[in-house]
Amino acid sequence: MNRIQSIDPATGQAVADVAARSTPAEVNTVVRRAADAGRSYERAGRPLRAAVLHAAADELEARRARIVELGRRETALPEARLNGEVSRTVYQARLFAGVVEEGSFLEATIDHAADTPMGPGPDLRRMLVPLGPVAVFGASNFPLAFSVPGGDTVSALAAGCPVVIKAHDSHPGLSLLAFEALEAAVAAAGAPAGLVGLVFGREAARALVTHPQIKAVGFTGSLSGGQALLDAVNSRPDPIPFYGELAGLNPLVVTESAARVRGPEIATGLVGSVTGSAGQLCTKPNLVLVPRGPDGDKLITEATRLIETTPALTLLNARIAQAYEEDTQEWKGQAGATGGVPAGAGFSVSPRLLEVDARTLAQTPPKECFGPALIVARYDAGTLADVLTALPASLTGTIHAEPDETELVTRLTEVLRPLAGRLVYNGFPTGVMVAWAQHHGGPWPSTNSLHTSVGPTAVRRFVRPVTWQNAPAAVLPEELRDGPSAIPRRVDGRLLLPG
Amino acid sequence: MNRIQSIDPATGQAVADVAARSTPAEVNTVVRRAADAGRSYERAGRPLRAAVLHAAADELEARRARIVELGRRETALPEARLNGEVSRTVYQARLFAGVVEEGSFLEATIDHAADTPMGPGPDLRRMLVPLGPVAVFGASNFPLAFSVPGGDTVSALAAGCPVVIKAHDSHPGLSLLAFEALEAAVAAAGAPAGLVGLVFGREAARALVTHPQIKAVGFTGSLSGGQALLDAVNSRPDPIPFYGELAGLNPLVVTESAARVRGPEIATGLVGSVTGSAGQLCTKPNLVLVPRGPDGDKLITEATRLIETTPALTLLNARIAQAYEEDTQEWKGQAGATGGVPAGAGFSVSPRLLEVDARTLAQTPPKECFGPALIVARYDAGTLADVLTALPASLTGTIHAEPDETELVTRLTEVLRPLAGRLVYNGFPTGVMVAWAQHHGGPWPSTNSLHTSVGPTAVRRFVRPVTWQNAPAAVLPEELRDGPSAIPRRVDGRLLLPG
Repeated sequence: MNRIQSIDPATGQAVADVAARSTPAEVNTVVRRAADAGRSYERAGRPLRAAVLHAAADELEARRARIVELGRRETALPEARLNGEVSRTVYQARLFAGVVEEGSFLEATIDHAADTPMGPGPDLRRMLVPLGPVAVFGASNFPLAFSVPGGDTVSALAAGCPVVIKAHDSHPGLSLLAFEALEAAVAAAGAPAGLVGLVFGREAARALVTHPQIKAVGFTGSLSGGQALLDAVNSRPDPIPFYGELAGLNPLVVTESAARVRGPEIATGLVGSVTGSAGQLCTKPNLVLVPRGPDGDKLITEATRLIETTPALTLLNARIAQAYEEDTQEWKGQAGATGGVPAGAGFSVSPRLLEVDARTLAQTPPKECFGPALIVARYDAGTLADVLTALPASLTGTIHAEPDETELVTRLTEVLRPLAGRLVYNGFPTGVMVAWAQHHGGPWPSTNSLHTSVGPTAVRRFVRPVTWQNAPAAVLPEELRDGPSAIPRRVDGRLLLPG
Repeated sequence: MNRIQSIDPATGQAVADVAARSTPAEVNTVVRRAADAGRSYERAGRPLRAAVLHAAADELEARRARIVELGRRETALPEARLNGEVSRTVYQARLFAGVVEEGSFLEATIDHAADTPMGPGPDLRRMLVPLGPVAVFGASNFPLAFSVPGGDTVSALAAGCPVVIKAHDSHPGLSLLAFEALEAAVAAAGAPAGLVGLVFGREAARALVTHPQIKAVGFTGSLSGGQALLDAVNSRPDPIPFYGELAGLNPLVVTESAARVRGPEIATGLVGSVTGSAGQLCTKPNLVLVPRGPDGDKLITEATRLIETTPALTLLNARIAQAYEEDTQEWKGQAGATGGVPAGAGFSVSPRLLEVDARTLAQTPPKECFGPALIVARYDAGTLADVLTALPASLTGTIHAEPDETELVTRLTEVLRPLAGRLVYNGFPTGVMVAWAQHHGGPWPSTNSLHTSVGPTAVRRFVRPVTWQNAPAAVLPEELRDGPSAIPRRVDGRLLLPG
C-alpha cells in the first residue's frame, strides 16, 4: 500500500487516507530544492532566520484549534496536553528567534594581526556557519514539539539550515497541517520557497539520510529505530552527524529517609510521572529504587493502589501498544506485578507495576518500556550507590532525599553524573523545560551525541566553524567586521558584550 | 618483532631499540589507571587542570635541548623547526591553562526557578563536564605539537579528562622523552599518577579505541589510518566520538590579476609552503590553480625553477617516502612534470611539480600527496569558480587576488566556504597559529568533525553538558553556585562577565 492513513488510537480504525509515501525521486527533488533555498537563506543572515521563526510561531498559533482537534483524533492525547504542546512549540520558536538575535551561538571571534610569543600572527576571524540541509525525523510522542515544527526544526532554521522533515506515520494529518504552518511562515517572512520540505514513509527515510546534500540528521525515537538510521548514515561515503535521542531507564532513587518522611507523597508524584501522556515520554522514570522495609512498603502500597485505580490509557499507535504488551507480558506471571483497570478498545492498555530485587539489576538491567509501566526495585540499606553504578546511562537521574542527607546525596550525585544528562532532585524528570540551562541528552544509549535536543544550545548541532585569515572586510560576514558589535564576541582573547 | 626501534630518516638505519609494543592487557592496565586518576582529577576542578598544563610547559621547556637533539635523529626535521615546535607546544600548554582559568568553555548557565510563559520553571543549572579517558594518537609530522604533549592532549587535560596516548612508531624515543615531561608535570602539580598514559604499537591502537573506559579519540593522520580506527570505533557497542584530522588538497587559487601583478612572488611563497618541513604538513597546498597565458606561465616558470633547485628533502619514515614515490611516480612520464635535485640516502626524495589541465580535475580530482609535491592546474579565463566547485573539501582554501577584485573574491569565497574550514587570503595555509579565532578542521574528508583540533575551542571535543535541576548547593560544581562568579556565565538568559 502506497498511502498513509490516519488511525484513531481510541478505536484502532482508519480515519482518512492522508498522504502518499514519498519515492526516492521525490525525496531527491525536495532535498535539492531545500539546498537551493538554503543558499539564499544563509546569505540573508540572522534577521531572516529570526523572521521565519517568529512567523512559524504566528502561523502555528493561528492553527491552534485545528491542530488540537486533529491531534486528538490522531494521537488520543488529551486536549490539555495538545494545547500545552502548541504553546510549547510556539514558545520554542520565539525563544529560538531570540537566540538568533542575541547571536552568542555564532561564537564570533576576532584575533587581530599582532606579534605573539610565536611570532607575527595573521588576522584570524572565526564564526559558526550553517552545515547545510538537515534531515529531521518527527517523533510519535510529541506530535508538534519533536515533530514537524519541533526542536530539531527550529534549531536547524536558527542555525541557518534548510530542513527536510520525515513525517511520523502516526500523525500524518497533523504533520501536513503543521507543515502548512511552516510553509506559510517561510512565505510570510519572505524566505525562499522550499526552505522546509516534508516527506513520508520508510523508504523516504533511507533516501533522505543517504542523500549527498543532507549534512546532518536529527532523530527522536527508539533505540532500534535510531540504530537502523545510524547504520544507513554510516553507509554514506561521507560521515555526517546523526543526533539521536533514543532511550533510557531514567532511574529514580528514594533514600531511606525520604521514604520514611514522604513515601506516599513520592508515590503520588511518581505514578503521575509514569502515567502522564500514557507514559510515552522519553524522560519517564522506568526504574525506581525503593528501600526494603516498612517505609518502602508504604510507598509501594500507595503506588500500587494508584496504578490499580488508574483508568486504561490509550497509546499512540498499534506498534507501541503491541510493544507495551510484549514488554510487560512476562511481568503478569511474576510475584509483585500489578496492573490497572483492564484495557478497552483501540490501542488502550493497563498501567503496570513490577516489584523486583535490586540485586538482580546488575545481571539483567531492565529494558526501557515505553508506556505507563514502572519497575520498582527494592534495595538493602547502604547498597544504593552500588546498585546505581551497574545501570546503563539515561537522559535523567533523579534523587529523592531529605535536606540533612548532604553526604549521601553528594555520593549519589557522583555515581549518577556519569550515567545521566540531567540530575533531578526531589522532583520528577518528566516535563523538560525549554530553557538556556536545559540539557536533554546523555551518555549512550540515551543519545549518541554530546549535545542537547532541547533548549538554545541545540543549535550547535547544525553549525560548524570557519576561520577567515587576512580576509578583506568585504567578504567577511557582518558579525566579523571591525566596529561596534550587536552580538557578544571574543576580540583578541577577551570576551566582550555588545553595547 | 615485538620491539620498536628508532630509525634515523637520513640514513634509514636503526639507531636504538627503544620500546616494547604494548599488549592488550597492558593497554587495559594503563586505561584503568587513567580512569581512576581521572575521577580525582575531575573533582579537584579547574585549578589543578591549569597547574598540570603550566607544569607541562615547564617540564617540556626544561627538556628542550634533549628534545631537539633526539628529534633531529628520529625525524630529520631541521633544528630550527624542532626548536619552534618545542616553543609552540610550550605556548599551547600555557594558553590552554589560561583557557581553563578564564572558564568560558564550561558554558556555565543558570536559570533560576521562575514563572515562565510555559508555567513555573524549575531551577536549572548547566555546565560542560569531562567526558572521561581520551585516547590520543601521536602524528608522525608534528612529533610534539600533534603527538604526545600536543593539541589533543592539552585539550583533553584542559577539559578535565585523563589521556592515554598511542605513540607514533616514527619517533619512539621522543615520545618517551615527552611523556617523561608529562609525567613529571603531573607529579609536580600534585595530580594523581596515571593521569597520562603511553602505549606503543598497532595492536595497542585497536585495544585502546575499543576499550570500554575510553570515551573519545583524537587522531591526526592519514585518511586510510583514520578510516581504520573509525571502523574499530564503530565496532564498539557504545558509539564514542572519533575526532579525525585527515587529509585535503588545500587548493590555492591565483586570479588572472594576481598572476599578472605578482606571479613570481606568489611562486616563491608557494614553493616555500610546499617544501617547508619537506611538505609534510596537513595544510600544505597540494593543488594550485593558475590561469592559462603568459602571466600564469611566468609564475610556473619560477615555481619550476625553485622546485628544480631545491635540494633533496628527507621524509619522516620509510612508509611516507615509499608512498611519496608511488604517488608521484606516474608524474615522471607526463609532460609538465618536473623534479628537483636527485634524492640521496635514507628517506630522501626530490620535490616534484606536475602541470595539468584544470578541466580534468572534475573527473579525476588529484589525491593528496604527503611530501614536497605540487600539482599546478591551468584554468581558462572565467572558469575558476566552476573548477573549484568540483573539488572535494579540505582543511584550507586560499585565494590570491588583487585589491580591486572584490566581486571575484566574494564569488570565490562563496564557492570555497563549503569546501574548507579556513579561508586564507593572499597568504599560504601552512603555519597554523594557535589562537582563539583559529579553526583547524573542515568538511569530510579533511575531518569527520564539527570541531577544530587547534586553538582553545578544541576543548569542546572532550566535554559534555550536564544539567542539575533543583539541586542543593552542596552538590553543585563551584562554578554553578549563586554569588559572585570568576567566570563568564549566562544567568536567567543574560550573558554576564565576571567582576
